[in-house]
Amino acid sequence: MLAAIAVALVASPAVADVPAPPTRLAVGLDTLWVLLAAFLVFFMQAGFGMVEAGFIRAKNTCNILTKNFVDYCSASIMFFLVGYAFMFGRGNGLIGWTGFALEGAENPSTVPLWAFWLFQAAFCGAAATIVAGGMAGRMKFHAYLMYTVVISAVVYPIVGHWVWGGGWLAGMGFGDFAGSTVVHATGGSAALIGMIVLGPRIGKYVNGKTRAIPGHNIPLASLGVFILWFGWFGFNPGSTLGMARDGGTCASLVAMNTTLSAAAGAITAMLTIWIIGGKPDLSMTMNGCLAGLVAITAPCAFIAPWAALTIGAVAGALVVGGALLLDRLRIDDPVGAVPVHGLNGIWGTLAVGIFAKAKYIRAADYDFREGLVYSGSFHQLGIQALGAGAVALFVLTAMGLVFLAIKGTVGLRVSRAEELRGLDISEHGMESYAGFQIFVTE
Amino acid sequence: MLAAIAVALVASPAVADVPAPPTRLAVGLDTLWVLLAAFLVFFMQAGFGMVEAGFIRAKNTCNILTKNFVDYCSASIMFFLVGYAFMFGRGNGLIGWTGFALEGAENPSTVPLWAFWLFQAAFCGAAATIVAGGMAGRMKFHAYLMYTVVISAVVYPIVGHWVWGGGWLAGMGFGDFAGSTVVHATGGSAALIGMIVLGPRIGKYVNGKTRAIPGHNIPLASLGVFILWFGWFGFNPGSTLGMARDGGTCASLVAMNTTLSAAAGAITAMLTIWIIGGKPDLSMTMNGCLAGLVAITAPCAFIAPWAALTIGAVAGALVVGGALLLDRLRIDDPVGAVPVHGLNGIWGTLAVGIFAKAKYIRAADYDFREGLVYSGSFHQLGIQALGAGAVALFVLTAMGLVFLAIKGTVGLRVSRAEELRGLDISEHGMESYAGFQIFVTE
Amino acid sequence: MLAAIAVALVASPAVADVPAPPTRLAVGLDTLWVLLAAFLVFFMQAGFGMVEAGFIRAKNTCNILTKNFVDYCSASIMFFLVGYAFMFGRGNGLIGWTGFALEGAENPSTVPLWAFWLFQAAFCGAAATIVAGGMAGRMKFHAYLMYTVVISAVVYPIVGHWVWGGGWLAGMGFGDFAGSTVVHATGGSAALIGMIVLGPRIGKYVNGKTRAIPGHNIPLASLGVFILWFGWFGFNPGSTLGMARDGGTCASLVAMNTTLSAAAGAITAMLTIWIIGGKPDLSMTMNGCLAGLVAITAPCAFIAPWAALTIGAVAGALVVGGALLLDRLRIDDPVGAVPVHGLNGIWGTLAVGIFAKAKYIRAADYDFREGLVYSGSFHQLGIQALGAGAVALFVLTAMGLVFLAIKGTVGLRVSRAEELRGLDISEHGMESYAGFQIFVTE
Repeated sequence: MLAAIAVALVASPAVADVPAPPTRLAVGLDTLWVLLAAFLVFFMQAGFGMVEAGFIRAKNTCNILTKNFVDYCSASIMFFLVGYAFMFGRGNGLIGWTGFALEGAENPSTVPLWAFWLFQAAFCGAAATIVAGGMAGRMKFHAYLMYTVVISAVVYPIVGHWVWGGGWLAGMGFGDFAGSTVVHATGGSAALIGMIVLGPRIGKYVNGKTRAIPGHNIPLASLGVFILWFGWFGFNPGSTLGMARDGGTCASLVAMNTTLSAAAGAITAMLTIWIIGGKPDLSMTMNGCLAGLVAITAPCAFIAPWAALTIGAVAGALVVGGALLLDRLRIDDPVGAVPVHGLNGIWGTLAVGIFAKAKYIRAADYDFREGLVYSGSFHQLGIQALGAGAVALFVLTAMGLVFLAIKGTVGLRVSRAEELRGLDISEHGMESYAGFQIFVTE
Repeated sequence: MLAAIAVALVASPAVADVPAPPTRLAVGLDTLWVLLAAFLVFFMQAGFGMVEAGFIRAKNTCNILTKNFVDYCSASIMFFLVGYAFMFGRGNGLIGWTGFALEGAENPSTVPLWAFWLFQAAFCGAAATIVAGGMAGRMKFHAYLMYTVVISAVVYPIVGHWVWGGGWLAGMGFGDFAGSTVVHATGGSAALIGMIVLGPRIGKYVNGKTRAIPGHNIPLASLGVFILWFGWFGFNPGSTLGMARDGGTCASLVAMNTTLSAAAGAITAMLTIWIIGGKPDLSMTMNGCLAGLVAITAPCAFIAPWAALTIGAVAGALVVGGALLLDRLRIDDPVGAVPVHGLNGIWGTLAVGIFAKAKYIRAADYDFREGLVYSGSFHQLGIQALGAGAVALFVLTAMGLVFLAIKGTVGLRVSRAEELRGLDISEHGMESYAGFQIFVTE
Repeated sequence: MLAAIAVALVASPAVADVPAPPTRLAVGLDTLWVLLAAFLVFFMQAGFGMVEAGFIRAKNTCNILTKNFVDYCSASIMFFLVGYAFMFGRGNGLIGWTGFALEGAENPSTVPLWAFWLFQAAFCGAAATIVAGGMAGRMKFHAYLMYTVVISAVVYPIVGHWVWGGGWLAGMGFGDFAGSTVVHATGGSAALIGMIVLGPRIGKYVNGKTRAIPGHNIPLASLGVFILWFGWFGFNPGSTLGMARDGGTCASLVAMNTTLSAAAGAITAMLTIWIIGGKPDLSMTMNGCLAGLVAITAPCAFIAPWAALTIGAVAGALVVGGALLLDRLRIDDPVGAVPVHGLNGIWGTLAVGIFAKAKYIRAADYDFREGLVYSGSFHQLGIQALGAGAVALFVLTAMGLVFLAIKGTVGLRVSRAEELRGLDISEHGMESYAGFQIFVTE
């Protein structure tokens, strides 16, 4: 009789308070969640495209949109052929090397390899495309093609291996739930070194003064921010990679924290620029929103809601300060890629070491130490700083060498005449807005 | 032996033909559904932004988009801090007052509190943003900030408490499945009183004649309508708050009825304006579609498909008539917020009392009387009228006082010079379409 | 004791490694998947709208967007009233005739009829709207209304019955997983015969030369392509109609193959036009992406990933060749509807007969012979060619008669003056971009 009860309990573990059983329904539920998340992360590519296009001038719009398409297409193909193997393959602490073209590939998830790949490939595409905006308006298109193949095939997968593929940072207990470091600090660092090597756009810094070059289509950019926020609901909550284990509790916390941080980032950025510049600038408000999203990406599963509000609020102020600092340094970042993704990718990563709380860490199925405010210890903060720093340094170096190699061979920058005329005509032979009367400025 | 069978049946109720058990899989399925719905309702914010921006002039576009962002950010933060407590907290029939910042908050759903909060917060944001369009082109930005905090923190949650939080209307058997009254009549009523207090835009009514002020970007507006329709699949079907109870039967009916009503609304609005105005105007067709969506929101789970077609068809005609009536009354509603959300929010609420059928009411897990066409009784219709009327009266009064208080202190309306120049420059110091040649009219 | 174990095992089949039981959870999971997919396919309507609008001139934009709305609304209403009955009703090999207005309708799926209907109705809307782009800029609006009712009520459902409703092609083992033939070849064929009957736009072919008429809003078009790709994740993976049967394995493969083909199509189209035309044209790159999506739609569940890359790569080259060929034939296809949907719909259908592999066919729960590269036999390829040919012939004939009948009665084409002025003003009495300075050309 007791045996029968035991059998019944073992045979239907879905009822018992243990992890859901590996049945087809549980797998189906997890797969549906991961596929939905992958679709949403894919859709972020549209958001990046609209933000980047809207924030630059009309004459370079087709160019940046083409880069956006090619980024995702390259990420899909290269991450299928080699990137996944470098990131999740068996290997050492630095890189994996099994599972090329997914043949015999490792699958660390509970869902079909193909679904897991799709989700990861969309992340790779996001990392690649962050750079497009930062180098807008002056880079040769075929130089860009080289860049995007390298970052999606090699550089991003290596960083991913360190953190999510069982590499050396994973082994140290580095915590990055959905990629503040893996995706955003990587993309932001690549953008930073790219814009340094490339130099500023003609007319941006004249006689020691910074001239604003306003975006040509703010409604489009604002649509892009909404699409990115929408897609981030795949990026962050989807990084639970399942629903069956805990009935979606972790994913729900992540979704709420993501929203609170984005909202706080938008509000503080608006207030900051209002105080500094005298007007509630929409571009800065939108970048504050994105900054809040980037910053919450690493800690979203590990923290309480009040911490999410705090992290977002800091991110909104940081993005304004970062943008002003870059102009002070004469580094021309047309869309704010570095303050949004680089600076706040690092801030979000550090925030794990400050605000992470044991009960949330365990509930997210992670295992590392509590942050400073709960433990009083700098231990986890140190690991977070080490991880973010190592990734930034690696990407700056690797991509710096790539950009210098391109510069020394096929060339990185278009001619002055081409830049003045706009890359749409000179590189693609087409206009973005045929029939419209548009004043082309430098 | 019999005991063993009993144990097995109790231990695996997922198999029996009874409501799904509270297992982790069932919760996971419900949570996935509610999160998906919340994401879609969030995305409606982009739809509202694009519709409102597209239907007004280029010179005020950044302004309305900033309001849109701030609406959602304010809704997220205020609904987290206090709104949820007022709406779902324990209290009396008028308001709740437990669960501030979600500490010890009530959770009437089967899904994690955080997921339920996200879904509800998105509804709050939608109610807030309906007003932005109605007051476009002439309202001070910091006055708007005050408005949006009050509606998302206090006014919307109180109405929500009455209907969905166990308040006095819920107790009477008032039926509003997804918010024709709670969200749309609330937003529409606030917009109506706002535009009356604010007065019409300069140049709208000249020498007793109405002058059309055409929208500046109809493709953007049409994208917005598609996004809203898309998001409405979260709004209405998602209001089942689960899938496990009935295998998604109710959600499927709701999704179909939503589509049929939207389609019918678009067609009848197009035909109505074609007959009246001589041309199949796209703006009116799109507002007809939205009117069909608003009207079906209350009854979607309670009615047969033929009734959905009927409700939508009436909504499409109503929205045209409502727009003409407002102009006759010299009330300037730049985007049609009142005919779409106010008038059709009330029509949809009444439609429950006309078309609701017992078998669908029960299948939706509700309990109130059948509508007029089945029961021959005006009982339910009377309750619906009472509920919609009470909400409209409350919102008109509360928001009227708020707008008058703002008007009497910091001021509600920009100066004539600022209005003529456009709010983008005067309030935000930026242009929506830098480089484009645009004729700025009054 | 053994009996107790048996009872426990039988009572909780979710645990055993057999097809998921017909419980409410399994149905709920399938329903959630089908509803999500239906929402995504609905959203493709926005993608079609933006692509078609962006690729034509500003003066005809409202017109094409109105058609887009009306297509979906007509599809919803007509497919509810009669289309579903023709497609899925009991009847003969050519057409069904039971289940009008869904009364007593057949339901071949495991999900509620209403959810299945919503998914199918969205497909019907997609087939209808493909034609709008091909006939842009010169067709009378009320002629278009007649066309769209006929295709969504009769022509599309008949084709659908042949392949998915148990008709004669289904009986032969014709394989079209998600509609390369049913949706895309149907839409593309209707567009082809329509543009032949209608004739080219004024100014397109002058003195034997082809003049490019550039699109007016490429960012909008690129957003549309991203939305279409996003929506295709509902179109193709959603065509599994469930998750519970196999835990989502088939849907995952489909999602990956869809992505790989789209990526390959974009890249080869870009390279092809770069070689032929000298520049990496974005419009062609985007159509290459869409071509890859169309071509993978039939085979996505039946093939290995390398075949998906191959199919997409061929599609990208085909779409460039097809566009050049149409211009050579003086057939004016403003948005590339025929090369994208017609030509690649047929290519994708044939690809099933080339690349389909037994283990994937079985895993997708289909039953037909392997393709040429595995079997060395032309058997399946022959059936695929027969099916695609029969559908194309039927649609060309049926829609040709419809267009000729419209032409002979109310007229198909607007006057020369109306065409030159633009259909927005002449047919709808409105402008797309009020306030913008736009040069109107022929």
